[in-house]
Amino acid sequence: MHDIAALAAELAGIELATDRALLRQKSRDFYWYSPILKRQLDGKAAELIARPKDEAEVLRVLTACHARRVPVTVRGGGTGNYGQCVPLAGGVLLDMTAMAAPVALMDGIVEVEAGAKMIDLDLWCRERGWELKLWPSTKRTATIGGFVAGGGAGVGGITHGTMRERGNFWGARVATMQDPPRVLDLEGQAANPVNRTYGTTGVLTRIKVPLTPAQDWRDVAIAFDDFVPASRFALELAFCDGIPKKMCGVFDSQLPPFFKGLADAVPQGASLALVMVAPAALGALRELAAEHGGRIVAEQDAVAAERDPETTPFYEYCWNHTTLQVLKKDRGVTYLQCRFPFEDTLKAVEAVRIPFRDEVWMHTECVRFGGRTTMSALPVVRWTTQERLYEIISAFEAAGIGIANPHVLTIEEGSNYRRVPGNQLGFKRMTDPLGLLNPGKMRDFSPLETTA
Amino acid sequence: MHDIAALAAELAGIELATDRALLRQKSRDFYWYSPILKRQLDGKAAELIARPKDEAEVLRVLTACHARRVPVTVRGGGTGNYGQCVPLAGGVLLDMTAMAAPVALMDGIVEVEAGAKMIDLDLWCRERGWELKLWPSTKRTATIGGFVAGGGAGVGGITHGTMRERGNFWGARVATMQDPPRVLDLEGQAANPVNRTYGTTGVLTRIKVPLTPAQDWRDVAIAFDDFVPASRFALELAFCDGIPKKMCGVFDSQLPPFFKGLADAVPQGASLALVMVAPAALGALRELAAEHGGRIVAEQDAVAAERDPETTPFYEYCWNHTTLQVLKKDRGVTYLQCRFPFEDTLKAVEAVRIPFRDEVWMHTECVRFGGRTTMSALPVVRWTTQERLYEIISAFEAAGIGIANPHVLTIEEGSNYRRVPGNQLGFKRMTDPLGLLNPGKMRDFSPLETTA
Repeated sequence: MHDIAALAAELAGIELATDRALLRQKSRDFYWYSPILKRQLDGKAAELIARPKDEAEVLRVLTACHARRVPVTVRGGGTGNYGQCVPLAGGVLLDMTAMAAPVALMDGIVEVEAGAKMIDLDLWCRERGWELKLWPSTKRTATIGGFVAGGGAGVGGITHGTMRERGNFWGARVATMQDPPRVLDLEGQAANPVNRTYGTTGVLTRIKVPLTPAQDWRDVAIAFDDFVPASRFALELAFCDGIPKKMCGVFDSQLPPFFKGLADAVPQGASLALVMVAPAALGALRELAAEHGGRIVAEQDAVAAERDPETTPFYEYCWNHTTLQVLKKDRGVTYLQCRFPFEDTLKAVEAVRIPFRDEVWMHTECVRFGGRTTMSALPVVRWTTQERLYEIISAFEAAGIGIANPHVLTIEEGSNYRRVPGNQLGFKRMTDPLGLLNPGKMRDFSPLETTA
Repeated sequence: MHDIAALAAELAGIELATDRALLRQKSRDFYWYSPILKRQLDGKAAELIARPKDEAEVLRVLTACHARRVPVTVRGGGTGNYGQCVPLAGGVLLDMTAMAAPVALMDGIVEVEAGAKMIDLDLWCRERGWELKLWPSTKRTATIGGFVAGGGAGVGGITHGTMRERGNFWGARVATMQDPPRVLDLEGQAANPVNRTYGTTGVLTRIKVPLTPAQDWRDVAIAFDDFVPASRFALELAFCDGIPKKMCGVFDSQLPPFFKGLADAVPQGASLALVMVAPAALGALRELAAEHGGRIVAEQDAVAAERDPETTPFYEYCWNHTTLQVLKKDRGVTYLQCRFPFEDTLKAVEAVRIPFRDEVWMHTECVRFGGRTTMSALPVVRWTTQERLYEIISAFEAAGIGIANPHVLTIEEGSNYRRVPGNQLGFKRMTDPLGLLNPGKMRDFSPLETTA
């Protein structure tokens, strides 16, 4: 589609690749959890991979691509689930993983190159007395830039909310797709237009995130006879301000048998809660669990576990890793992303869990939004047809449950409100007037000129 | 009333005092904020002060007093406001301040002798990477035992709730008033019967509290043209999970002129918010304040301030220090303790602030209860008569505002629900069957025998 040979010549000196297999591999993420996205995205591929080692090289790529009207799609760890980094119109795949160095840590804010792996970044901060507030279940492979651009929710959400909460994402250095490209240093609210826009509003080269003081965490697995007491326990824990915690997921009894490395510890037919709490709170956690009939069936040091490649930190059973654990054994499932109401949360969970129990295996995660506590869910769904999936979505929405649809490609369709927030559209008109950054992902944007 | 000379002889070797002035001084706390309590308590005094240096001496005092049916009232820093440590029936004043040593810090839980001053304890923990979750505005004089036994709310409440939240108070070593006295090591829920019982259910000799990782805090004073935007700012801050914070108080414009050392920085007629946030969140705080029309008028390092006797940490304008700041210049006021509803919080604040503005100067503090965010208030009230005070209380309660009445002596009358929680009564029947511990403070308790 584009004159890639000429582009590659112009970019000489930058790490490039045109190998077909590599292009295909690096143009994918975990969109295949969705049979719908799989059908749409299989075969989509960039034409050239560029792996810049510094900002100057990023700017060279952007300059050349702008001049040639070649799309640029940014990739971090490739751990997204909605094709965030899948190029829909070919062009250049900008692999950010060579830009991974911490820049500074001052007053509890770390500045880091966008391609840093989150586990490495967390370790680096931890050695300095700090830790990340939030990370995805893919922490061991995801990058901080990708988390800001295409994720933003996960472990830590029970205490800190999401990366959209004021104070959880402080700033970014952003290269624009203008002629010539500019480099913007954005801080505070001014950085919102690059928060979770899949790289459509600029190329993140550096990220600033506020940290929280480091502490140890205990992974604890608690078995319950039934899902209802497990949920009650989880929500009560989520409201326990006296128990420092990083995570609490709840799994209906169909799910734990799929959890490699943990399944054997869970009694047959039991529902499961997986939590991360501070060691100081283990006593209080044990009491709370016992009051709800829970039995602790496994426990480990969470930080040691994530550093050991042979061990599974419990967060790798949580969030969307739950779906992955099932998919490893059974390719016939997919999933949903739900948010339950703040009031009567458990009633809403049960209102959809019970009627759909044969095909929707409930998995909830305690979270905070806007300072209030509720549960989100990433239930595993037996896949039959697209029509059936949308029937289920409609039934959930009719029960007052918000759906962030993970079976769509655009930011707008995937959001709870079906639009991009704030001034992101206006910002994109400034930073990417031709619409060359990850084209097709911000639905409501129309480029100033069409690019063939 | 009692044969103090014989008792003193029996307690030889223990630090004792019978000096009249000292007896009177050590039998008082800050109950005089309430003209009602002042009338009831002025002149009440112990007959003997015993200042044990270790648990063995505590047990000697309890043994001797039990045998002679002499009441024992425990005192920490004497910073209470409801006469918690004022002996109603004479007897021994058990001054715990000589038992102030840290015992151990393990896995984020500190064990400490009950008479440790909170500022010293916090400093000791901070040197080891931890800090207290909660402290009173009297941190520089209050003891940890007193905070557990007679306080439990204050700075940190915006994040951690109160000492009543599961996980904020982990355990105590308690000497009983039995024959012979026993020493109980209580942990978890089993320790609840000594939580905020004014020393009526046992003598706390050691306390175990879970800590939070230490970090720096910034004191920030923000002026607003009016109380309403100040309140909106404060409540939005309280809901900001991305901003680590220890405190946020709001003061109507009558109050800042009384704040010695800060008054000059606040523009005339301005309302004020005083907050403690982590340095990493200063940028986010500035943006949030500006959005509500707030102007930062003073800022300092909170930890440095509290260590410098010449400097006032901002928390010494907050919580019940607000009332003290006013009382230093105007003895004609008293105060109330209110809790606003979780929903329509600011509407409830305005519903009482506006009609009573001439005699009730509003002062709110953002707090969490049971995992939910709201505001409490310690408004300064122009004192006229008891009847008028109770009219105001009734009007507040009619507006749906909970009152923890600070003008009463008993635990029950001072609580929101007018009763002692859980199994505290039953526990007291076991640990103090004769009712010799701080008699008259637990209203619903009747001793097994009367003690003259």
